[in-house]
Amino acid sequence: LLDPTITLTTDFGSQSPYVAAMKGVILSVNPSARLMDLTHEIGPQDVRHAAFFLATTVPYFPKTVLHLVVVDPGVGTGRTLLYINLDGRRLLVPDNGCWVALARKIGGSPEVIRLEQTMFWRTAVSSTFHGRDILAPVAGHLTLGIDPHELGPVADHWCDLKLPEPQGGANCLTGEVLFVDRFGNLITNIPGEGIEQFKGHMKIRVGDCEVDRHARTYGEVEPGSLLSLVSSFGLLEIAERDGSAAKRLTAGTGARVVVSSNLPPDG
Amino acid sequence: LLDPTITLTTDFGSQSPYVAAMKGVILSVNPSARLMDLTHEIGPQDVRHAAFFLATTVPYFPKTVLHLVVVDPGVGTGRTLLYINLDGRRLLVPDNGCWVALARKIGGSPEVIRLEQTMFWRTAVSSTFHGRDILAPVAGHLTLGIDPHELGPVADHWCDLKLPEPQGGANCLTGEVLFVDRFGNLITNIPGEGIEQFKGHMKIRVGDCEVDRHARTYGEVEPGSLLSLVSSFGLLEIAERDGSAAKRLTAGTGARVVVSSNLPPDG
Amino acid sequence: LLDPTITLTTDFGSQSPYVAAMKGVILSVNPSARLMDLTHEIGPQDVRHAAFFLATTVPYFPKTVLHLVVVDPGVGTGRTLLYINLDGRRLLVPDNGCWVALARKIGGSPEVIRLEQTMFWRTAVSSTFHGRDILAPVAGHLTLGIDPHELGPVADHWCDLKLPEPQGGANCLTGEVLFVDRFGNLITNIPGEGIEQFKGHMKIRVGDCEVDRHARTYGEVEPGSLLSLVSSFGLLEIAERDGSAAKRLTAGTGARVVVSSNLPPDG
Repeated sequence: LLDPTITLTTDFGSQSPYVAAMKGVILSVNPSARLMDLTHEIGPQDVRHAAFFLATTVPYFPKTVLHLVVVDPGVGTGRTLLYINLDGRRLLVPDNGCWVALARKIGGSPEVIRLEQTMFWRTAVSSTFHGRDILAPVAGHLTLGIDPHELGPVADHWCDLKLPEPQGGANCLTGEVLFVDRFGNLITNIPGEGIEQFKGHMKIRVGDCEVDRHARTYGEVEPGSLLSLVSSFGLLEIAERDGSAAKRLTAGTGARVVVSSNLPPDG
Repeated sequence: LLDPTITLTTDFGSQSPYVAAMKGVILSVNPSARLMDLTHEIGPQDVRHAAFFLATTVPYFPKTVLHLVVVDPGVGTGRTLLYINLDGRRLLVPDNGCWVALARKIGGSPEVIRLEQTMFWRTAVSSTFHGRDILAPVAGHLTLGIDPHELGPVADHWCDLKLPEPQGGANCLTGEVLFVDRFGNLITNIPGEGIEQFKGHMKIRVGDCEVDRHARTYGEVEPGSLLSLVSSFGLLEIAERDGSAAKRLTAGTGARVVVSSNLPPDG
Repeated sequence: LLDPTITLTTDFGSQSPYVAAMKGVILSVNPSARLMDLTHEIGPQDVRHAAFFLATTVPYFPKTVLHLVVVDPGVGTGRTLLYINLDGRRLLVPDNGCWVALARKIGGSPEVIRLEQTMFWRTAVSSTFHGRDILAPVAGHLTLGIDPHELGPVADHWCDLKLPEPQGGANCLTGEVLFVDRFGNLITNIPGEGIEQFKGHMKIRVGDCEVDRHARTYGEVEPGSLLSLVSSFGLLEIAERDGSAAKRLTAGTGARVVVSSNLPPDG
């Protein structure tokens, strides 16, 4: 009745031996573990990218799946490693806040345990690769059914990480691009609900450029046109139909996006 | 007795959260599904690349495997989504013709069903990500054994897509490069049988360059030499031994390839 | 009791149809095979990269796993294909030495068998893709439990491949960079034990640049500082904290690394 599924999310890239070493260690602990790559292309040491990635993907998985995350710029310092339980969804993460945006989305109180019980670790623990030496074997043991409380003490504090939130209010919202996908679509941090107040009279600027069409989907505008829409993750997205908005607007992660009303000030 | 295997072929890239979200949705429907990445590096919205990829890979799989394909420039427009059965091989695809070259290769009459029965979809369907909201859950349900006829009505027409075919005949064949692999080998659309007529007196031109060696395999020519051969997929291939023909000839997808006889016109 | 796990290590890249074709062939032989991607990003035809990769990853796997390796510049020439048993760890490889560094690390006498028995191959064997036509089906049959001695005769010789070894001795060691990871860390061929003699008075040069900090982990130096450390694989590594040593030192694979004492010659 145990789910043997462990997803892997790292910033190791697909060329490195690090991912393969972790897979080997997990299988050595639990030969029946079912490993599933989510991505190994999180930006190097980019904890915010990891946070965005987890918040937009983990909710789609069954609760029984265990998520192993290794984006770990603090490896070998005093930072701890954590087991997290979010309303039944379980993650193993470095304590750098990568899971907090997901927790806010899911709601409720997280249960957090510090990984301190070395009997579930590899015998020799390096100072630069805790993903392989601590997180991977602990993941294996969890899918074998050990009680997470055996892993270490319950924690009552941890690193926070806030994804940038849009600023403004009644007449104007200023947000930024969180992620650029492979099609050059700009995914912003502005929630779809946030722009409803501007419906029918919305003006969007990315840097110096105006995006004057808002649509439900790409196909509603002509090829080559810029448009804004509410993305499949519920966030404001800037796209070019059959093209790349990122190239067209020379905009990347962090680019400023301003949504305002184009009604005259007196309404 | 049901095969739980679902292969995934997309143009999402390996960095995006889109692939992970689809995996989560499939597992939420069928926790025992066995997911297998084929590629997520189809050129963005490149339906012809997808068509070439499917035609060259699906035939190697057992018939019991289900193939999920998301290269979907028409998402959110009126285009439908299809379940395809090709002599027992099953695919789920957007109706853009990406499966038709494979169907021609396999032969026989395809059974095509339009996905219309929303009870097999996610409750909330976005207008920009039908891969996650429709195709993924339908794939999960199919591996649980539902009858494909429950998915919607049988279709009697669909989008066609012709991969470019070589032109010419007795004395000269003009084709083009369909795919450049990581080694810089140029895979053309000219079938191996098409060049047999030129055996022993064949002349091949790619752009302005002549390829004057034809061999059975790379190792038959000296390192650094250009050669043509019949590729492992049965198509004429232009290669450089231990090098990149693509770089050497500055040729990519779509480059013109002319095969002719070097015998004098009177034979 | 048979382990159905087959790992895949190739230089095919993730865009090509070659990996997918191999997966299909394996499943056609053994529908229950459990396929696990290690990497498809070995440098094209880079047998030394493959050797480094296997030596640093295979030891972490359970012995029961079968490793399929396709980095095969000699395909179609007279080179043979081999089944290797290293103290219970099994590999299928082209005979180009890619497994020998791993064998030295594991120790003991390898059992080597030449793949000659065509009944375990695909019926039609191409001259350019033995990964699909020979290694993949043989891997499928091995996970079904056939005796490896049915595959062909025992071999008593094979290609050797020596990874470059550090030179020098008491006062100075000269090595080179074997691998640059995604973070720009330079992994050298100098073993951690080799530098112990210099402890407390070590000087390291990469090209013209001196690396004057040696630490246990990245976090011990300030962000932006260069440091050397013993990597998680036991090899001397040059890194920049929160940055890329490869960029900072414009150093890549093959770059010379010199370790010496900074004590005056007379001690």
